[in-house]
Amino acid sequence: MTAYDNLMAFQRDTEALAQIAGRLSWDQETMMPRGAADQRSDERAAMEAVLHQRRTDPRIGDWLAQVGQPEDPVAAAQVRHIRRSYERAARVPEKLASDIARLVSRAHVVWAEARADDDFAAFAPVLKEVVALRRAEGEALADGGDTYDALLDDYEPGAKAADLVEMFGALRPRLVALREAVLSKPPMPGLTGSFDEQGQMNLSRLLAKTFGYDMARGRVDKAVHPFSSGSGDDVRITTRTVPLEPFNCLYSTIHEVGHASYEQNIDPAYRLTPLGGGVSMGVHESQSRIFENQLGRSRAFCGWLYGQMRDTFGPDIGVSTEEDFYRAVNRVQNGYIRTEADELQYNLHVLLRFDLERALISGDLAVDDLETAWNDRFEADFGFAVDRPAHGVLQDVHWSAGLFGYFPTYSLGNVYAGCLYAALRKAVPDLDEGLARGDTSAATGWLRENLQRHGGLYSPRAVIERAAGQAPSEGPLLDYLEEKFSGLYGL
Amino acid sequence: MTAYDNLMAFQRDTEALAQIAGRLSWDQETMMPRGAADQRSDERAAMEAVLHQRRTDPRIGDWLAQVGQPEDPVAAAQVRHIRRSYERAARVPEKLASDIARLVSRAHVVWAEARADDDFAAFAPVLKEVVALRRAEGEALADGGDTYDALLDDYEPGAKAADLVEMFGALRPRLVALREAVLSKPPMPGLTGSFDEQGQMNLSRLLAKTFGYDMARGRVDKAVHPFSSGSGDDVRITTRTVPLEPFNCLYSTIHEVGHASYEQNIDPAYRLTPLGGGVSMGVHESQSRIFENQLGRSRAFCGWLYGQMRDTFGPDIGVSTEEDFYRAVNRVQNGYIRTEADELQYNLHVLLRFDLERALISGDLAVDDLETAWNDRFEADFGFAVDRPAHGVLQDVHWSAGLFGYFPTYSLGNVYAGCLYAALRKAVPDLDEGLARGDTSAATGWLRENLQRHGGLYSPRAVIERAAGQAPSEGPLLDYLEEKFSGLYGL
Repeated sequence: MTAYDNLMAFQRDTEALAQIAGRLSWDQETMMPRGAADQRSDERAAMEAVLHQRRTDPRIGDWLAQVGQPEDPVAAAQVRHIRRSYERAARVPEKLASDIARLVSRAHVVWAEARADDDFAAFAPVLKEVVALRRAEGEALADGGDTYDALLDDYEPGAKAADLVEMFGALRPRLVALREAVLSKPPMPGLTGSFDEQGQMNLSRLLAKTFGYDMARGRVDKAVHPFSSGSGDDVRITTRTVPLEPFNCLYSTIHEVGHASYEQNIDPAYRLTPLGGGVSMGVHESQSRIFENQLGRSRAFCGWLYGQMRDTFGPDIGVSTEEDFYRAVNRVQNGYIRTEADELQYNLHVLLRFDLERALISGDLAVDDLETAWNDRFEADFGFAVDRPAHGVLQDVHWSAGLFGYFPTYSLGNVYAGCLYAALRKAVPDLDEGLARGDTSAATGWLRENLQRHGGLYSPRAVIERAAGQAPSEGPLLDYLEEKFSGLYGL
Repeated sequence: MTAYDNLMAFQRDTEALAQIAGRLSWDQETMMPRGAADQRSDERAAMEAVLHQRRTDPRIGDWLAQVGQPEDPVAAAQVRHIRRSYERAARVPEKLASDIARLVSRAHVVWAEARADDDFAAFAPVLKEVVALRRAEGEALADGGDTYDALLDDYEPGAKAADLVEMFGALRPRLVALREAVLSKPPMPGLTGSFDEQGQMNLSRLLAKTFGYDMARGRVDKAVHPFSSGSGDDVRITTRTVPLEPFNCLYSTIHEVGHASYEQNIDPAYRLTPLGGGVSMGVHESQSRIFENQLGRSRAFCGWLYGQMRDTFGPDIGVSTEEDFYRAVNRVQNGYIRTEADELQYNLHVLLRFDLERALISGDLAVDDLETAWNDRFEADFGFAVDRPAHGVLQDVHWSAGLFGYFPTYSLGNVYAGCLYAALRKAVPDLDEGLARGDTSAATGWLRENLQRHGGLYSPRAVIERAAGQAPSEGPLLDYLEEKFSGLYGL
């Protein structure tokens, strides 16, 4: 066995164990008996300890030293991933890592209570601790470089906040302007009627297959939060049902199928290796968003979906033409909550968080001033005031979990989706003809071939650039949104 | 931290990881997408490697040496389990252990094909290899002692084949005689009608609760084979449904609830320790069998179940009195298959396997002669000939999996159940009054208090002896069976 063989054999087992840990999370959200929570914490902690030990195993360092820089591009990419992950793990003192794990576990509980009580002051003390420890971790990882960038790198390898500031700076004013123009127009129709749970789940499974999800290597279950879990041949998704809001279920499903297809479509040769998963959160989100929005909320696809809705729930769903159904799907409304935001406003929610969390990590913004800063920024972008903390600064789980640097990947994913969609339309001029028949194969096949199959082979930016044919920028997303919503609202 | 603390902390994580491995098996039988089988093999192999490494970690030996023999009885029992497991693991060369793992994985596939083809000769070569390697393992474990005993000890710590030979030797003639007497009488009525799957599953869940299964710490799913999985606060069971045979589903459920209650009712202080699981296969089987047979197939309980059956499936189930329902539940019929055998004949199937597998391990019986030996013995005990290998020597998975020493624990469990039931009847004279109302709490409470809660604290024989008030013997089981079936068949 060469050092490379040893390294990869060891890594394969680690990846396999990481898949098991992921399945355990899936089980917890879908199948676990409610009385098993405490025992499950112990089980997960034991598994995390095994994974941490393997990821910092000094033999990895020895093998890496012997391997050097392989010439084969696949081997080089494998080694690049392993080296990056090993070096990052080695930079964080073990005590700091375990302090953070314990702290965020506590912070999550405090946050959930504070949100229920609409009481930011109850969350602030523990959030200060989380900010302090994650800042310390960022400094350790940055090794003299930018602290926030070091945290961002966990979710979007290679991304720099300064680039995102520029990109999002170009995004924000045009989104605010578009939002204002749209909301000055009469509102779109909405659905009414009853949408039984079984019908929603049946239609979810149909949509999953329609978007190319391989049910023989996955499954769809219900959970409180929709998510996708796993890589390779076992990629499971969840969705949720809300009685009066079938779009919640259906578009959550399409979104998660975007994530899941990416994992399912990676070259099988990369299974249980560092190349065998999606390359970054941003690229992952580009897949979920292009499935959900550019394809799933397109006029052509909505025409097909309208027929499916009527077949499933009967003719009385509150709209009676394909065009009105398309307008209902794409209705823009005021709202406080990021996860419920429409395609137009979603990125404004994200940009707000990105700016605030950078200020928290740099120390320019104190946790005690966070609620006011949130409310001021929200009113500036959305034109109305936050009514309560649960609808504002306390709405998202991320900061309580220490996930600083995660939010911007949502908008980066949308920007990437915009670039990919522009290239897809050029490559497949008759895209809408298929979508209008409920046939997504031209689009999903193009994404598989040009992006998904590569897994972690290229860097996030590089894989987008290869597929889109140009360096990623916010322009295509803005052009798409302005064209779509101008048409919808007659601007 | 003392050496004992270190030992227990390490062991707790190992037990937690073992629970995860068990849940992975559960997932495989219930939830896993069919296309995930290959990847799952890799995942399980990685997990097994972690567990093996932990179980043979030399630090355990160091800690054990420092701990010596604790005075506290609970600590002493923990150390006894850990020492036993560590010493056994240390005796088996790593190469032999991994050779066996690989071999049985292959043997299983060969066996399944041979069974489908009714071709013992196709299975014989790989079975020879399995026998040879397991014999080698037994010799390594026995360290000069009896080879078969060393294998048996894996499933029933402390048991000796010589004692079982004596016990089963007393069991066999009286069972053969009882069987002949019963089958000379007119057959019992059977169920007819249709028993929809949903009704069977609903009644299964009702039965699970009726027998004290804590649904907040477990769940019931469908699988090809009924089983119970997990310890502590996450103990899941499966059952199966066969359209025309509701008893298959219902009594499988009660059987698995017996196993699951044992795990659920162990003292919570033992959770994720060596004391936190059932102490042996035989004691486990005593719980599943007393739930299923002595309680679930009793005249009193059948009266209650008859009402539930009519409520669930309507009045046309083929029998129209409680007495006929009781007779249908306990119908004795000729049959080839162990897993479908009635309470009277079941042990004869097991005894046959016990005698043959001892002869295989000792070398007194060659694999090439196994099919003939099986068929001869079957005809001697059951009075008719095996019609095909799938109904005979190829019917069980155990030998292909290398599980020599496992079969006798089934009958030992029945013997234990007989002893426990005799003691239970003395302790709870009005047992039948509760059972007739579908109230099993007096029985299940007695078993929990006198046996289940102890987990691994006492040896298998000791915990039975404490609960039953006398050393285990086959007498009570035989007396119970002779009384029950004499009454049923008017002998």
